Amino acid sequence: MNKYKEITEFADRRALFFPTAEIHSALSGFWDFGPMGAALRRKITELWRKEIVKKVDSVEIEGCVILPKQNFEASGHLKNFVDPLVQCKKCHKIFRADKLIETETGKEVPEAAGTKEFDGIIKKNNIKCPACGKELANVKKFNMMIGLSVGPVSKEYNAFLRPETCQNIFTSFQKIYKSSRVSLPLGISQIGKAFRNEISPRQTLVRLRELTQLETEIFFNPKKINEVEEWDRYKNHMLRLKLLKEKDTKSFSCEEAVKKKLVSGKLVAYYLAITQQFFEKCGFSPENFRFRELEDKAKAFYSKETWDFEVKSEVGWLELVANNYRTDYDLSSHQKVSGVDLSVVEDDEKFIPHVWEISMGLDRIFLYVLENSLATRDNKPIFKFPYYLNPLHVVVLPLVRKDGLDKKSREISELLKERFDVKYDEKSSIGKRYVIYDQFGVPLAVTVDYDTMKEDTVTLRDRDTQKQVRIKINKLPEAIEKFFSGEKIEKLGNIIK
Amino acid sequence: MNKYKEITEFADRRALFFPTAEIHSALSGFWDFGPMGAALRRKITELWRKEIVKKVDSVEIEGCVILPKQNFEASGHLKNFVDPLVQCKKCHKIFRADKLIETETGKEVPEAAGTKEFDGIIKKNNIKCPACGKELANVKKFNMMIGLSVGPVSKEYNAFLRPETCQNIFTSFQKIYKSSRVSLPLGISQIGKAFRNEISPRQTLVRLRELTQLETEIFFNPKKINEVEEWDRYKNHMLRLKLLKEKDTKSFSCEEAVKKKLVSGKLVAYYLAITQQFFEKCGFSPENFRFRELEDKAKAFYSKETWDFEVKSEVGWLELVANNYRTDYDLSSHQKVSGVDLSVVEDDEKFIPHVWEISMGLDRIFLYVLENSLATRDNKPIFKFPYYLNPLHVVVLPLVRKDGLDKKSREISELLKERFDVKYDEKSSIGKRYVIYDQFGVPLAVTVDYDTMKEDTVTLRDRDTQKQVRIKINKLPEAIEKFFSGEKIEKLGNIIK
Repeated sequence: MNKYKEITEFADRRALFFPTAEIHSALSGFWDFGPMGAALRRKITELWRKEIVKKVDSVEIEGCVILPKQNFEASGHLKNFVDPLVQCKKCHKIFRADKLIETETGKEVPEAAGTKEFDGIIKKNNIKCPACGKELANVKKFNMMIGLSVGPVSKEYNAFLRPETCQNIFTSFQKIYKSSRVSLPLGISQIGKAFRNEISPRQTLVRLRELTQLETEIFFNPKKINEVEEWDRYKNHMLRLKLLKEKDTKSFSCEEAVKKKLVSGKLVAYYLAITQQFFEKCGFSPENFRFRELEDKAKAFYSKETWDFEVKSEVGWLELVANNYRTDYDLSSHQKVSGVDLSVVEDDEKFIPHVWEISMGLDRIFLYVLENSLATRDNKPIFKFPYYLNPLHVVVLPLVRKDGLDKKSREISELLKERFDVKYDEKSSIGKRYVIYDQFGVPLAVTVDYDTMKEDTVTLRDRDTQKQVRIKINKLPEAIEKFFSGEKIEKLGNIIK
Repeated sequence: MNKYKEITEFADRRALFFPTAEIHSALSGFWDFGPMGAALRRKITELWRKEIVKKVDSVEIEGCVILPKQNFEASGHLKNFVDPLVQCKKCHKIFRADKLIETETGKEVPEAAGTKEFDGIIKKNNIKCPACGKELANVKKFNMMIGLSVGPVSKEYNAFLRPETCQNIFTSFQKIYKSSRVSLPLGISQIGKAFRNEISPRQTLVRLRELTQLETEIFFNPKKINEVEEWDRYKNHMLRLKLLKEKDTKSFSCEEAVKKKLVSGKLVAYYLAITQQFFEKCGFSPENFRFRELEDKAKAFYSKETWDFEVKSEVGWLELVANNYRTDYDLSSHQKVSGVDLSVVEDDEKFIPHVWEISMGLDRIFLYVLENSLATRDNKPIFKFPYYLNPLHVVVLPLVRKDGLDKKSREISELLKERFDVKYDEKSSIGKRYVIYDQFGVPLAVTVDYDTMKEDTVTLRDRDTQKQVRIKINKLPEAIEKFFSGEKIEKLGNIIK
């Protein structure tokens, strides 16, 4: 069984994630996250705050998902955020033209190609409707934004669900710059939902209609693209780059990447290094990831330079982050449509800042963290999450739920909750519970037995070695801290198993 | 100047919150939160997780905001989630009938009243269009959900933005119950956006079209409504209740409330106590809050018993939480429409669990935290947030930005970031920076001066007393910890001011 299948089955069985409103006939492309899934996502988000937001000295904002139509006139999404669709003349089924061509011919055509190019390829390769075999109509560009009518009167769309969270960042940049005691380079981050009316949502969390982004937009003076305060600390950091003109991924130091002009400047190399470090902390290995340089046609319409951070997953190379050099595209466009001056003054010079974007997809990162943490024991999946990402630190288990063992366990659970993420469980045999929480990826189990009642000790069990030690209850919080600082379980108490 | 005006002006000046896409002609009822605003909201959310989610032993999930139409056929929102609107026959302006009647007659009519009742009152009081003075048409019920079309074909609404986050909780209850090793009473919580197509959004964050809810739904066996494990710890907790038949708010212990049958059972009293405790931790005083008992007509259509938690604010009594006894309404309705069995078996008995709801509005809580923390110094607003809610713990300030003081400050800032929420600021005079961060509500300031460079000490300044002490850099983290544990500033170093 491949890992992807194993994960989706486990996810369904243990409610890590499942189709939204599943009990009704749910719409495809929407997924909800159950207790363990949501907890893992919060841990990834915390790590993002620590490793990206804090490191690049970014502020964080929180904005609405519904934005007025005018925003998307300015941003270009009304015109450019389109998918190429082709409909069968006979059975009226609709397909993504680029995906259809890829399936039928094995050739990749960028989704941003022109309709005539698509029509030409379809004609040349004599591609017919895969459903009924009849002729296909001409390719049309379909806007992927979801429109809405706000207010009781309007029947036309006067607003859209944002297709990317960064739009709030661009429209509020000037306000934040002027009021929040900050200077360039200024990072502004946001976590939130984005929405895309995909024609063919697929592979659970890989292509969604409602997704969660962790975005950071860094505003900087383009003349200072080679000024990085932290350069000395990062210049030797090795980046995994898959260049457009090379077949294989190679390692370059940040310094080399700048000298060979593989990137637009030191700032770019620095932000790529920060991004890569985040994933190293997620436990990903260098041989399984790369920054892929994108050709012009494949880039988003607003980007001058794009490096997709990709991981080698069971479903192929999977993009987790779009790193885009958006230049002054967004601020200039918003300035033009709104009439509001979005320039800044620095060193007596007035200019519109440029933007480097680190746009992460939480859903795909979540999915790949599961894949990367998946191991097998006795033919069952278990998750070995890296320390930072453990959704639960400890589970507290009474040997049996009687004679006060359950009450004592709940007390210990309350005690540990103050410092750790803890769950109490009294159902099923103790052996079965160990197996279940190993699967959930919980690194430590505390067991309360009859000796606990006599001598105030419990057993502490390590998921990975399955070793157990006996330990005083009042030493427990400290022992758990030590374990997570790297101490071996056998150093924490008297080994009993 | 009243507090509400002072807050909104400060919020605008310092980008705590501002209209979404403000540079364009923004839609009303949508607000974005800048760095300090978003940080305060995260602190409130953390406190909610600690004081409500963990205390009631709830799991937390994360679901989509777009839900299929069928969900709202089941939930009753398609039929019942309506506002009474009245349109002028002449100028076609639209008004909320209940609000219009209140303005014109001073009388409150519940928004859930029938259209005929509204028409009768309008006729009897001879109410005309407030805009042009002409005759009003009959009152109509307008559905407040925002509809949308998902997929490339559909032109009809096949989905809606959820008007309350709890809908994901009801549809996933059975899956979570079966897969997540839990038992009744089972709390399921969610933080997320909800959407209401209000005709008249008003008073900034008071009535929004896009809002954030912190919701907890507790599923329990109705036969066990008087079984509360924690009862002994809570039975003497004093609840502030404004009974339907009383004019004033009075204090009742949980035990009294149960004995006098003011609430449906011990579970209800216990959850009200937990809710009230959360607000006590937010720094709210008992004389400024109450649980208001709602009459039948004023309750939401799904509720058997409702206690609105309200605070005495500058804009009047303001509802922050709806506490609803939703019974088995939701699970039964979803079961009926979906055909999926949502009952559980406990003690050999099959039944549909009942639900107690704690539905909090984050935006209003945020607004009232600002109001409640607002003080004035030298005619300028300063915010004295309670410890738990401080968006920033410390600001690090070089006396001047030269001679290495700036570099040293940034190093100290990095050091402190590992344990605290920290900001570095080198702009403006030191005195001006103190004033600004007092306003932002930052309790401590670290100043780096020329003595720092000689003897590795800094000054630590307390916002509230404005006292300063001199302290070794390596003692700083520990001193800050002590300060937040209640130690006075003068005990932490040599006082210099």
